[in-house]
Amino acid sequence: MPQNIYDDPHFFEGYSQFRRSREGLAGAPEWPTVRSMLPVMDGLRVLDLGCGFGAFDRWAHEMGAAHVLGIDLSEKMLARARAQAPDSGVTYRLGDIEQLALSDASFDLVYSALALHYIADLDAVIAVIRRLLAPGGHLVFTVEHPIYTAPSHPGWQTDAHGNQVWPINDYLIEGRRVTDWIRPGIVKYHHTVAGYVNILLGHGFSLARLEEWGPTPEQVAEHPEMAVELHRPPFLLVAAHV
Amino acid sequence: MPQNIYDDPHFFEGYSQFRRSREGLAGAPEWPTVRSMLPVMDGLRVLDLGCGFGAFDRWAHEMGAAHVLGIDLSEKMLARARAQAPDSGVTYRLGDIEQLALSDASFDLVYSALALHYIADLDAVIAVIRRLLAPGGHLVFTVEHPIYTAPSHPGWQTDAHGNQVWPINDYLIEGRRVTDWIRPGIVKYHHTVAGYVNILLGHGFSLARLEEWGPTPEQVAEHPEMAVELHRPPFLLVAAHV
Repeated sequence: MPQNIYDDPHFFEGYSQFRRSREGLAGAPEWPTVRSMLPVMDGLRVLDLGCGFGAFDRWAHEMGAAHVLGIDLSEKMLARARAQAPDSGVTYRLGDIEQLALSDASFDLVYSALALHYIADLDAVIAVIRRLLAPGGHLVFTVEHPIYTAPSHPGWQTDAHGNQVWPINDYLIEGRRVTDWIRPGIVKYHHTVAGYVNILLGHGFSLARLEEWGPTPEQVAEHPEMAVELHRPPFLLVAAHV
Repeated sequence: MPQNIYDDPHFFEGYSQFRRSREGLAGAPEWPTVRSMLPVMDGLRVLDLGCGFGAFDRWAHEMGAAHVLGIDLSEKMLARARAQAPDSGVTYRLGDIEQLALSDASFDLVYSALALHYIADLDAVIAVIRRLLAPGGHLVFTVEHPIYTAPSHPGWQTDAHGNQVWPINDYLIEGRRVTDWIRPGIVKYHHTVAGYVNILLGHGFSLARLEEWGPTPEQVAEHPEMAVELHRPPFLLVAAHV
């Protein structure tokens, strides 16, 4: 089971301050791109891995999903998600996808936002997702971009030419990374872009779209502090189907 | 038409000194991986874009390809390729894929090694490749990796922790880059990894495999100077089919 940092009171408090935590999907700048990669929700059975506060689940429900199941390792996050859930059509369960008893071919869409980079054995999780998807089913997920997760000491630097740069090392060394994010000692797992793609292809998925997300000109105009993200993408967005 | 630097005497001389120029496929450390991404050659009609000295074309011929056509913009490179070509089964033509009159669906494999990052309008070239491929046909190509082509001032640095790092900037800004390689003023075109993948998907290709090449432990043992390439991949390798 991945490290559950979200039930740490200090971490939970810090995470709750983020714009994406306070504003939901509207506070996630990559959401318009993610949304464009999703199938039409109407009638779909949806599984959300690492659902957090449930913003996506409420959206999917509003868009006509037949049912949405959100799972997460954090009781605190699920408590907040449940408090905002509609009466029916969205349910939440505490646990790990590999432990929960879910039926084969019982979902049309598996969605996961910024959770899979905490998974040590991604191949095993993708195998479970493949099993849970009905024929023609979709997988759409976002993770921290491999350029973001690779370095042993991630962070911006200024080079000799006065340019802001993101120094990378160990990109081709996949595996465990320990970084400081909100609190010290956060454990993540680095995969290369090809690593993510080939795990999917190896389990019989067809790749539908790959996005290395950065802000649009309009977003940079509104939030000039986002411009730096054009130097290296913070997120990798993947759409695939079976 | 891309800048033809290979007919510049100084550049040609410099390029000819490279291990991959002197030793052919055996001198290209990524070749074993590329080879594993290729279909069985027996009976295939093969087009090689940017064939250079023709090492791949001779190999494809030896492996049983029905016919191999190598095209290149450099007369000097084609002259050397022709001098080593077998009597039949391999032909060479000077020109650009968009200019040469080639029949629709007349090839089973289009191959290109370290040439497509010189192409300004990659989308147009991929459209031509798609048209030239017979049903079920394959496209296998290598390019300089986007992490390698992105920076405005590419090169290794040592960071404050004493680590060798490859600083990147402008990764999400696709387009023209002018760098010094053998001689000053070499023009290349940077695409993101997702940019390469989505152009293929947009033209109806299915992605079969993506590799961000780095040396194997055996290669590092034999050539310790290669270890640095593990910090950032020098090459992107792509296999797709129609």
